[in-house]
Formats: sequence, C-alpha cells, structure tokens
Amino acid sequence: MLTLFHHPFCPHSRFIRISLGEFGEDVKLVEERVWERRESFLTLNPAGTTPVLVEDSGLAIPGASVIAEYLNETRANNSQNHHFLGRDAASSVEIRRLLSWFNEKFFAEVSGPLLNERFYKRHLPLSAGGGAPDTDAMRAARSNIRYHLAYIGWLVSQRAYLAGEQLTFADLAAAAHLSTVDYLGDVPWNEDETAKTWYARVKSRPSFRPILLEVAAGMAPSATYADLDF
Amino acid sequence: MLTLFHHPFCPHSRFIRISLGEFGEDVKLVEERVWERRESFLTLNPAGTTPVLVEDSGLAIPGASVIAEYLNETRANNSQNHHFLGRDAASSVEIRRLLSWFNEKFFAEVSGPLLNERFYKRHLPLSAGGGAPDTDAMRAARSNIRYHLAYIGWLVSQRAYLAGEQLTFADLAAAAHLSTVDYLGDVPWNEDETAKTWYARVKSRPSFRPILLEVAAGMAPSATYADLDF
Repeated sequence: MLTLFHHPFCPHSRFIRISLGEFGEDVKLVEERVWERRESFLTLNPAGTTPVLVEDSGLAIPGASVIAEYLNETRANNSQNHHFLGRDAASSVEIRRLLSWFNEKFFAEVSGPLLNERFYKRHLPLSAGGGAPDTDAMRAARSNIRYHLAYIGWLVSQRAYLAGEQLTFADLAAAAHLSTVDYLGDVPWNEDETAKTWYARVKSRPSFRPILLEVAAGMAPSATYADLDF
Repeated sequence: MLTLFHHPFCPHSRFIRISLGEFGEDVKLVEERVWERRESFLTLNPAGTTPVLVEDSGLAIPGASVIAEYLNETRANNSQNHHFLGRDAASSVEIRRLLSWFNEKFFAEVSGPLLNERFYKRHLPLSAGGGAPDTDAMRAARSNIRYHLAYIGWLVSQRAYLAGEQLTFADLAAAAHLSTVDYLGDVPWNEDETAKTWYARVKSRPSFRPILLEVAAGMAPSATYADLDF
C-alpha cells in the first residue's frame, strides 16, 4: 500500500490525498510535523516539506507537482477517464499552468500566509516559528483571495471546470487550497456565485469527504466548511 | 519558428533558452519587462512572469516547468538521447524533484533575492520596485548559496550529473540559476571543487554560449563569468 507523509492543514498534502481518492488508491497516512525536521523524513525529502508519497518498494516521491506527474504516469487509467493531466499537449499546458498557479502563486499569496498566521503560529512552539500573528500579512492575504476567487469565477464561466470541460488536477489543487482557507472562514464566497457553485461541485466528490470530516483540536472549522449546500 | 518572451537576467528564462538550444530549436527572443505589465503579455500569461514560449499556432506555454514538460512531450527525440525528463518513473521523479528544487527553492533562497537586490532594484524605476538594496536579504542569500553548492557537490560526487548518469533538465535549470548569480560574482566556487567541475562541464555546452556572451549595459559580469576554465 502507498504511504503518504502529510499534514492535515498542508494544502499540498490535501491535493494529493484528494487525487489518490480520485484514483481509488488506498493510502496509509503519516502525519509529519515538518518543523521538527526529523532526520529520516529529510532522507525521504531533503527539502523537508510535505507531501511525500512512498511506494512499497521504498521509492519516495516528494512534492505535490512531482507526485501528480508520477500518479499520471503510473496510475492513470484511460478507461476510467483519468485525464487529470489532459488528453493532448495544449490541454496539458493549461492544466499545468493552473496547477502551478494554485500550488505556487495562490499558496504564496493566500493559503500559505493565512495558514501560517492563523494556524501554525498558534499551534507551534516559539522555537519552531510560533507566536503572535502578523495582522498585515493576514490583511494582504484576505485581500489577495478576492482576485483569485474572481479568476476562478471567470474561468468556470467559460468552461465546466477550471482547465476545460473535464475535472482535472487543476480543480483538485485549487479546491484543496481553498478548503484550508475555508476551514478558517476566510473565503468570501458571497463575492462570486460562479466560483462558489464550482467549489460546491468539487467539494461534493467522495474523494473530498475524509478531509471535510477532519477537525483540528482547539480550532473549530467555519460553520459552512463541511456543508455541501453552503 | 518558436517565440520566447524572456528577460536576460531571469534564470527561468535562461533555463528554457538553454533547453531549446539542447533540442536544436531556433527561437525568436522577445525581451519582456514584466514590471511594465503589458496587457498583451498578461493575455499570454495571466501570472505576468517570464518565460512564455509561443508556438506559431498561437499556443502560449507559460512558466519554466510547464515549458519543460511541453518540450519533453512535443520535441524530445529518443534517437538523439533526449531523456531530459528521464527514461522511467523513478528517474523522472528525481529529475522533477531537482527541477523544483532549483526553480523554486534555490530561486526563493538565492537567485531571486540576489537578482532583486543587486540587479532589478538598481535598474528599475522606484515605481516598479527600484531603490536601495536590502543588505540583510543579500547577506542571507549569500549564506544560503553555500549549502546549495555543497548539495550540488554531494550529488555529483555520487553520479555523473545532478539527477543521474545523464544530463537532464535538472542540470540545465541548476546551471541557469547559478549563471545569473555567477554574473554578479556571488558564487563561492572555491568552496566546492566538485560542484565547480560539474558547472564547468555544463557551462561548456554550445547551448550555454549565447548566454555567456550577453552583457547588461552598465553592469559588467564577474571576471570568470564567461571563462570556461574559471
């Protein structure tokens, strides 16, 4: 069975958990506290970040985008409509562009800073980066999310899903990042009905369910987090 | 013919220029000043970053890692030994891991801050982010590069090239980032002879030559920048 070193609030880990669910892969989850910098974890991924997927053979696949490419190469089954990285070069370009958009840009501008200020700083010891949140960083991220939400709304006003007419890794990554921000109650859903409808569709998939049922100790999710008709 | 929107000092653009050279592809270069945020450029890449590769058909491929995957899918010729993304799933994992290492981690910790403080701030108007360099950021980047150089040295002490026995995109990306820092004279080559020997090999490839011959107005390269026996 596959093993995934992850953290419940790491959006990149969530993206991979949801993707594994879409592929029907069972996975053993290991919660990794990357700030402890465990030596045996650094051997799996010298960059020291989650997620890391490990095969029974011992092969370690570190990083969300590397894992997505790997799953596509080793697990995609065309008869089951697993075109999560596209059917042709042009659609693959659009999917990878949006994967990078959410896993890097959205993470740098929205999910990364909000999780850092509102979750990690609160739960981590001072020595590992814990402490008082930086309200300027929170304000900037809450402002940034508005144009990302508008961009999602614009994309799905032209297409069924973010990168085209089919569900792809782009949708799974975007929804994974949004789900962490939604847990904190920081997604202004009322600003974009089209984006909200798209998220409701992705969030309703069985692959998403395990994530919606998880709750962090001492930090309740927003009222609508797990609600499929939010 | 392909068109590449690039900037001479953008390491991600350099990586793609070198890769196109390895594939024997002619390319029309367009220097893009991303800080001007030209509307027609934002249409090609809403993220507003270089590089963007454009096909004659009009298809725009934005971002270094997306372009690398695209070149591999559309231009790789196995008879010419173009295994820049690997021959099997395990070697592809290692190549993509290192691509992400240099294009994201090295860029965030070394090449991005050094170029920003030492090049862009000096050449850009205040309104576009120009101004006095932040010496703390420069000091941090100059400290960070030392462990990256040691990591390169460690990798090539076990293998012929960064990701294995063959030249791959990992080498081209790493060398592209290093070349921008080397222009500024900020690579402490004397700290790692193995890394230096590896860089000398990559830098000697014909695909690298055009980049070594370019000089920025008002900013001479370091004495050894274009020297193949530095």
